[in-house]
Amino acid sequence: MRYQEFTIEGRNAVLEAYRSGKPIDRLFILDGCQDGPVMSIKREAKKNDTPVRFVTRERLDQMSETGRHQGVIAYAAAYEYAKVEDILEAAEKKQEAPFIFLLDNIEDPHNLGAIIRTANLAGAHGVIIPKNRAAGLTAAVARTSAGAINYTPVAKVTNLAVTIEKLKDKGLWFVCADMCGTCMYQLNLKGPIGLVIGSEGEGVGRLVREKCDFTASIPMKGDIDSLNASVAAGVLAYEIVRQRMA
Amino acid sequence: MRYQEFTIEGRNAVLEAYRSGKPIDRLFILDGCQDGPVMSIKREAKKNDTPVRFVTRERLDQMSETGRHQGVIAYAAAYEYAKVEDILEAAEKKQEAPFIFLLDNIEDPHNLGAIIRTANLAGAHGVIIPKNRAAGLTAAVARTSAGAINYTPVAKVTNLAVTIEKLKDKGLWFVCADMCGTCMYQLNLKGPIGLVIGSEGEGVGRLVREKCDFTASIPMKGDIDSLNASVAAGVLAYEIVRQRMA
Repeated sequence: MRYQEFTIEGRNAVLEAYRSGKPIDRLFILDGCQDGPVMSIKREAKKNDTPVRFVTRERLDQMSETGRHQGVIAYAAAYEYAKVEDILEAAEKKQEAPFIFLLDNIEDPHNLGAIIRTANLAGAHGVIIPKNRAAGLTAAVARTSAGAINYTPVAKVTNLAVTIEKLKDKGLWFVCADMCGTCMYQLNLKGPIGLVIGSEGEGVGRLVREKCDFTASIPMKGDIDSLNASVAAGVLAYEIVRQRMA
Repeated sequence: MRYQEFTIEGRNAVLEAYRSGKPIDRLFILDGCQDGPVMSIKREAKKNDTPVRFVTRERLDQMSETGRHQGVIAYAAAYEYAKVEDILEAAEKKQEAPFIFLLDNIEDPHNLGAIIRTANLAGAHGVIIPKNRAAGLTAAVARTSAGAINYTPVAKVTNLAVTIEKLKDKGLWFVCADMCGTCMYQLNLKGPIGLVIGSEGEGVGRLVREKCDFTASIPMKGDIDSLNASVAAGVLAYEIVRQRMA
């Protein structure tokens, strides 16, 4: 998984990327553009669940590095994404109960990188992020992950709530971080677990929160509202580590 | 403590700042400059333990916002620093055993801000940073502290090791974070405590480490070296919180 950043521009290049199975994080298409190749690209995007934004020509011109975007620009993942199954297999291989991070719309690449780093060191088997409204595996994420991105698999899913349901069927419990939850020291966080971390500002979304078995809070003794998202993830992850070691 | 950023330029302005007691974080003086006012400024810098760098005219010209630096530019603290005594008083006022963060050369303002934020929420009474080789209370620090800088006193000291000695006389114990330490879950971290966090990359300096009573390590189960400094600070701080709550 060597790092390489991709901006793919032009109709053929983007179509080719889809056909070769390159993971596309995000697609920008000229608003109103309806011709054949663009329709094919839209079909591929739908098939692959790529988030698409329809933008003006000015916007595309600004984004373009080559000046020849032909109405289509794709952002490709810098790293390959894993599958959720790969994460479960990693746990099985180590003969450990699965421990997975799920990030509900962490948009800041520095936070995403720091959380992948924490996941690696806390012994989590992988990280799951949603396709929409979240940072992808960019250069900045790779840098702040301090190399963890090379070891800890990151999977991207269309719908976190659905993924949680599927993982519950495989025996995982889910705990989400929320200020209104039970103090984390009072919860039993052993066993196969998914730790759900919300975005800064908005926290964990309602649909995802409702799927969780527990809501854990970090005791807050100060004057301000909340910890930085990556610090909160670290504190919760290490409470899980502590309980697993006990 | 409203926020305001200062770059003070010119001989009289810098001298005046010293005389009015403004906290100066860092001083840049034209290399080789020996005239009267500059010598006075150097004396003030020595008296106030301000780190001084002697730089070229080109460097000063680059840094200058007004174009009239006259060979001297000072960076003044954006926030007022507290005294170590203020931190102890804050603990006494709350009738709690002191809990203080000491940061050994955290140079990244985002980490400093996130750590002040964590200190606030973990219920620490203050943060102590060294005068040299450390980020000061800049705009970036204020921003990433999410307002915590308005509540949690930050003191700046000339020599962390000496400060630790003095605080030991007042009954504090010191624990420093180091990968070679005892697993933090096995240490007794109750009572009046100072938590020493090192810089990313270098960790806690030898002189400071030798003053500490314990060395605590965070269990590392992954493939990479270390947690982000602000995440490590959060994980350790909350182990202290857990033990204090128990």
